[in-house]
Amino acid sequence: MPGIAERREQFAAMFTRPLPAGVDSSATTLGGRPALELRRTAGEDVLLYLHGGGFVVGSPRVTAHVTAALLRHLDGRAVSPDYRLAPEHPFPAAPDDCLAAYRELLDSGVDPRRLVVAGDSAGAALAVVTLTRARDAGLPMPAAAVLFSPAVDLTLSGASMRSKDGVDPFFAPADLAWLFERYLAGADGAAPEASPVFADLTGLPPLLIQAGSSELLLDDAVRLAGRAGADEVAVTLEVVPRQPHVFQLDDRSAEAAAALERAGRFLATRLGGGEQNRS
Amino acid sequence: MPGIAERREQFAAMFTRPLPAGVDSSATTLGGRPALELRRTAGEDVLLYLHGGGFVVGSPRVTAHVTAALLRHLDGRAVSPDYRLAPEHPFPAAPDDCLAAYRELLDSGVDPRRLVVAGDSAGAALAVVTLTRARDAGLPMPAAAVLFSPAVDLTLSGASMRSKDGVDPFFAPADLAWLFERYLAGADGAAPEASPVFADLTGLPPLLIQAGSSELLLDDAVRLAGRAGADEVAVTLEVVPRQPHVFQLDDRSAEAAAALERAGRFLATRLGGGEQNRS
Repeated sequence: MPGIAERREQFAAMFTRPLPAGVDSSATTLGGRPALELRRTAGEDVLLYLHGGGFVVGSPRVTAHVTAALLRHLDGRAVSPDYRLAPEHPFPAAPDDCLAAYRELLDSGVDPRRLVVAGDSAGAALAVVTLTRARDAGLPMPAAAVLFSPAVDLTLSGASMRSKDGVDPFFAPADLAWLFERYLAGADGAAPEASPVFADLTGLPPLLIQAGSSELLLDDAVRLAGRAGADEVAVTLEVVPRQPHVFQLDDRSAEAAAALERAGRFLATRLGGGEQNRS
Repeated sequence: MPGIAERREQFAAMFTRPLPAGVDSSATTLGGRPALELRRTAGEDVLLYLHGGGFVVGSPRVTAHVTAALLRHLDGRAVSPDYRLAPEHPFPAAPDDCLAAYRELLDSGVDPRRLVVAGDSAGAALAVVTLTRARDAGLPMPAAAVLFSPAVDLTLSGASMRSKDGVDPFFAPADLAWLFERYLAGADGAAPEASPVFADLTGLPPLLIQAGSSELLLDDAVRLAGRAGADEVAVTLEVVPRQPHVFQLDDRSAEAAAALERAGRFLATRLGGGEQNRS
């Protein structure tokens, strides 16, 4: 089994893509962590993007091409914190860093009506946890959030964990269990701040959830949509057939391009706070 | 408790609305049953609309304004069969009539790539059952289907049957049980042709499912989306906050107008078979 450093290198080599033209990339800090800022235009819109990688691998740079694809639909910049990873920094280090990032954006004067949040896999889970913690702290909600293949049940209790075992080209259940054990380090995986499929989602902004039909994590997406809907959140779930986990990251895929286009439009039409699942 | 005839009159009085200008309405037959045809333009697009009413009440005329709202996005006509109702004609009379209607459209030369299907509540369930039976009979699939507040679990096993009891302004669980008992007349409610949330949905066309967050039937919609996604169907689920069952029928509601607009666009962009959850 490869070591942690080797896993991180392999993950970065597999997914990192060139940034598109017209986007300026710079190093910054956010919430006390290093962060990557992408700027496309001088506008005030801000996208907070939380990368995936099972809480153990990944970085803002690996998903920068996805961040840039969403940013095409906004007038402004994206910022993506390099939150602390397990096993060196287990739960709740990553949620703490993400909440600090969200809080610093608001403290620096970002208008929450011009702020949107997105993430993939573990990053999508961190996005949901950040929103529930921000709500509980009395902070304003952003205009919308997009969640790609959210990994929101660290107890692996979804039916697709069995029905898609052998179909999912990325993961076996044991791979997910290994990652989540590193992250939890003994904490309760059923806690809502670890597995937000069990959280009260009341008050969250409009959510777009996308998943592939081939995912072990398909039921995470479906149950999160059900939970959000039951909690009176405006939620849209899209399941794309025969697509794997985080298919949006594959820049050669027409399905990925179409999904990112829908996601970008979802965010753009909700900026300003005027839309509630209306366009 | 009112009699069946009185229930039908009350339901029609509550929901029937004037038809919009620009739509010609005429009586026809389809699949051996009376049917209502709405024509807007001379084009070849056909919408098969299956009305709701718990399998006991309702008619094509009651939901004609909803049918017409969807038809605005198509180039052609809509047709809605007056399928047989319970208790006079229990399961499987209604699915048989709906399959006959679908088959007659194809037999009469309708291009399945120009054909779309929609329905509300019990009619949405009949739409799903019609598609699975048409698939099993080797018939071609339509280009897409839209399902408003589908009533797809006659065993009432969804979690929202409890969590939204008292929230749902339309139904108590006992109301649904009463209707479904009339329809089933002793048949097994867990059979996939009665409760298509338990059906194999493989091969169905792209589906848009809409539900309100206040519905006892919310979990029917969520679980149907999960089932469809697991079966590799391109599916989009939208939950609209603080909306009741079949909120699309209320022609004074901005949420209804917006939902019908999204549904019409969903159908229109999939006509011709070119789109798979892409727009």
